[in-house]
Amino acid sequence: MEQVKIIEVKESVFAENDKDAAELREQLKKEKTFLLNMMSSPGSGKTSTLLALAKELKGKLRFGVMEADIDSALDAEAMLDAGVEAIQIHTGGMCHLDASMTRQGLEGLETQELDLVVLENVGNLVCPAEFDTGASKNMTILSVPEGHDKPLKYPLMYETCHLLVINKTDVMEYFDFDKEKAVEYAKMRNPGIEVLFISAKTGEGIPELANWIIKNVNEWNDGV
Amino acid sequence: MEQVKIIEVKESVFAENDKDAAELREQLKKEKTFLLNMMSSPGSGKTSTLLALAKELKGKLRFGVMEADIDSALDAEAMLDAGVEAIQIHTGGMCHLDASMTRQGLEGLETQELDLVVLENVGNLVCPAEFDTGASKNMTILSVPEGHDKPLKYPLMYETCHLLVINKTDVMEYFDFDKEKAVEYAKMRNPGIEVLFISAKTGEGIPELANWIIKNVNEWNDGV
Repeated sequence: MEQVKIIEVKESVFAENDKDAAELREQLKKEKTFLLNMMSSPGSGKTSTLLALAKELKGKLRFGVMEADIDSALDAEAMLDAGVEAIQIHTGGMCHLDASMTRQGLEGLETQELDLVVLENVGNLVCPAEFDTGASKNMTILSVPEGHDKPLKYPLMYETCHLLVINKTDVMEYFDFDKEKAVEYAKMRNPGIEVLFISAKTGEGIPELANWIIKNVNEWNDGV
Repeated sequence: MEQVKIIEVKESVFAENDKDAAELREQLKKEKTFLLNMMSSPGSGKTSTLLALAKELKGKLRFGVMEADIDSALDAEAMLDAGVEAIQIHTGGMCHLDASMTRQGLEGLETQELDLVVLENVGNLVCPAEFDTGASKNMTILSVPEGHDKPLKYPLMYETCHLLVINKTDVMEYFDFDKEKAVEYAKMRNPGIEVLFISAKTGEGIPELANWIIKNVNEWNDGV
């Protein structure tokens, strides 16, 4: 098994995260690297969605992953095993990444050769939404077993995301999950949010998610 | 529908949370009120577990609930509808409760008449574990769809909890969840942690969870 590169990141000593994030975003635009910030609860399926995407995007985009975790290198190991370029970021107990921490991770990944970097943020619906990482776009995954009421309880997460991916549709029949209410509540928080339904397990909706990403990467490179 | 009492709590201006928490715990011991701090990811089933417990504990313990959320009063409404004394705490965007915020909530609940107060903490596996709320005991819920690897990724949550409740056992067959690994990983973080399996939906394991609580409430009152 390939050895996982682990980067212990530290929070910026400067409080000006928004400024730092805007600078990072500008830099990535010049380098034609699209950074997608993926956020969700623990266990909603970020890693398995990334593994499904890796297959779908093969040959279409040069793709790397930054796995952020409090501890462990499980997710980066899973990516490397699947042949995806990946590094593990350890936040030292912190519940989120800021722009400075994200930059430290990007430096470890050597993004010059990549069209797309996905940041798998710490599993948490509160803190990651509060800090601009410098990402080109933000997405959140809501899994069916979590329930359709989450946009009501974690407003900021839905306000800051461009895309909501509803995962684990394969187990829809075993849970009281109302698809229409989930979309309605998300749009209450953010009328412009796009919504896709997927099952990382069965592959349902993965081509549509890959297309969403390719379209956004192209627009980013075209300066839209 | 009964009107939900909502308390907007503020973080203590004092940094000495550990001292404050110890004082609150001492005070609750004198008043013979057992405070159980319930933590988990969003959507792992804290509210539905509480609703199942409310039925089971009826006539055995005088029971109240403090629901902590960033926004919404959904959970407290669900409790009141079920006939459980409950208040809603809003954290003003914060990802956890500290001892001072917990005290503000307890004052709103009038705990003199209660044997047991359950604090349903903000859905988050990182921040709530970092702050002592003054609770008598801490428990965490891990739901089957989240996966058995969570104790590896969120170590502090498992280190601080006395009880791990594994919920949604009714959907075990639809997920790749290894019960033995979940227990093994939790005990790696905390050898003393107790583990119970439940389904809040079917009621499986709820009597055992109620017995765990009654036993701990009795020991608290006996000064054990």
